[in-house]
Amino acid sequence: MSKYQKVNWKKKLDFLLFGWLVNWAYPEYYRPKYGYKSYRKIILYNFISQKILGINRKTPWPVHFTSIVRSPEKIQKGILCDPGDNIGVYIQAVNGIILGNNVGISPGCKIISANHNVCQHSKHDTSPPIIIGNNVFIFANSVVLPGVKIGDNVTIGAGSVVVKDIPSNSIAVGNPCRVIKAKEPYAERFEAIEFNRKIPENLRKYFSSY
Amino acid sequence: MSKYQKVNWKKKLDFLLFGWLVNWAYPEYYRPKYGYKSYRKIILYNFISQKILGINRKTPWPVHFTSIVRSPEKIQKGILCDPGDNIGVYIQAVNGIILGNNVGISPGCKIISANHNVCQHSKHDTSPPIIIGNNVFIFANSVVLPGVKIGDNVTIGAGSVVVKDIPSNSIAVGNPCRVIKAKEPYAERFEAIEFNRKIPENLRKYFSSY
Amino acid sequence: MSKYQKVNWKKKLDFLLFGWLVNWAYPEYYRPKYGYKSYRKIILYNFISQKILGINRKTPWPVHFTSIVRSPEKIQKGILCDPGDNIGVYIQAVNGIILGNNVGISPGCKIISANHNVCQHSKHDTSPPIIIGNNVFIFANSVVLPGVKIGDNVTIGAGSVVVKDIPSNSIAVGNPCRVIKAKEPYAERFEAIEFNRKIPENLRKYFSSY
Repeated sequence: MSKYQKVNWKKKLDFLLFGWLVNWAYPEYYRPKYGYKSYRKIILYNFISQKILGINRKTPWPVHFTSIVRSPEKIQKGILCDPGDNIGVYIQAVNGIILGNNVGISPGCKIISANHNVCQHSKHDTSPPIIIGNNVFIFANSVVLPGVKIGDNVTIGAGSVVVKDIPSNSIAVGNPCRVIKAKEPYAERFEAIEFNRKIPENLRKYFSSY
Repeated sequence: MSKYQKVNWKKKLDFLLFGWLVNWAYPEYYRPKYGYKSYRKIILYNFISQKILGINRKTPWPVHFTSIVRSPEKIQKGILCDPGDNIGVYIQAVNGIILGNNVGISPGCKIISANHNVCQHSKHDTSPPIIIGNNVFIFANSVVLPGVKIGDNVTIGAGSVVVKDIPSNSIAVGNPCRVIKAKEPYAERFEAIEFNRKIPENLRKYFSSY
Repeated sequence: MSKYQKVNWKKKLDFLLFGWLVNWAYPEYYRPKYGYKSYRKIILYNFISQKILGINRKTPWPVHFTSIVRSPEKIQKGILCDPGDNIGVYIQAVNGIILGNNVGISPGCKIISANHNVCQHSKHDTSPPIIIGNNVFIFANSVVLPGVKIGDNVTIGAGSVVVKDIPSNSIAVGNPCRVIKAKEPYAERFEAIEFNRKIPENLRKYFSSY
């Protein structure tokens, strides 16, 4: 049985006391109802900095106070994906970022959709959006650069600098980041999990592809 | 027309209400008067942490509360250059750092002028200062090591570790950082911009070199 | 004479006023009594965030508010070693981390003892603990991955990704991190230093190996 299905009274009380506030404050937060993060901690570490102090106020999911999400309105994302929920993450979505379901972005990562023009720093270069598929994990201190496409079921090793597209079902590492081996199919399934809120139909359709 | 020349009443009000406080608190802050950062946000995100909470209190330009500037009195810098204004930046100037005009330092970068001695951690090695020229941009998560000289009009790619000098007019990337191609001349000119304060003569002389 | 032996009335007053609180709050903080960090600053930058705001509350040594130490109860460490005392450091000890005496971990480093399983993100892979010896310095923005052993008297260069064991008495750099040269014996000795508290016998025995 998944840890997300073990429910005890502490978890229930946590959801009762703080879950409604988290759900209200973060309309794009889709996580297992029980057993992921405590709702009390989301209030303490995210809600206070975002909704009271105003750091990343407009981002509709929890962002850590040491991270920045620029242009969150240009980010389209699935469930189980909260870019910026770890420390020291910089998400710059000036040219748009499209993230699938179940994308993990580790501490210290930078996802940068628009470079400063190298000959005119005050302007951003335009480029296609960054597109990241389903079931992707990007390990610590990595950087993803403008226009990069990362497929489904991909693992990016720590300290990588992703400058070119990474195909589906692969493990890639290095600076510059290159595929080093194929990846087994993704094994986790989410149909049985009870979520913190109803999953919209357009996101639910991906469940079968897990 | 540059975005720095588009002035509306909101920007004027912002300068009227908060600009004087920013200018008073940060005597080495030289940026376009309108259209760069809102002065209100500099108060919220920089002034409160620096001048009230005392994090990087002595640094005479805005520093983000997640960044640290050590020995700011040993930093000599031009206009359009506020090392530490991004998240997770560590500027250690024990051996001195000389920065030109218009130097951008991205989130997660570390500029380290003095290593801890490898056989005696409690001592810093002495070395010449780090010298960085005009119109330089250092992209995310890069590290610049002691004694390095970076010329004018240089771009350092994300995730680079700069261990050797980088000549002017070049684009350099990698760990260790190497020149990968020549760079076009820098295109932006600043003569027409109205600044937040008078630019001292010794900094103004560089304007023609842009 | 070491800087830790220069004592003046300011340092004595600082210890009198704040030293007892630091020693009480941080039972695993072992540093020179005078001349390392001011106790007042530890209260300002560490105690308030840890003991009042509750960020890294359970970690029994000072941790910066921009850093995270996960599972601190699984960290075993020596003296002169406070992982997370710099900015943007992420220490994840799910599989255990064993650190020797005098280990420096620079800003932006990540020490990760358990990866998320690449095919099942919600599970951590098990692996042996990370083991780091005495007199080790890990420079900025480096990452140490699960199960890695680093010997005694080792320097890891900035921006390294340590994926394999690093033997004693070596300097190693790069992504992936490789030994580039042998290191001189460590030169500093600590027998003469007065510490902030009594050093337990099991840690004191290492003194002679410095």
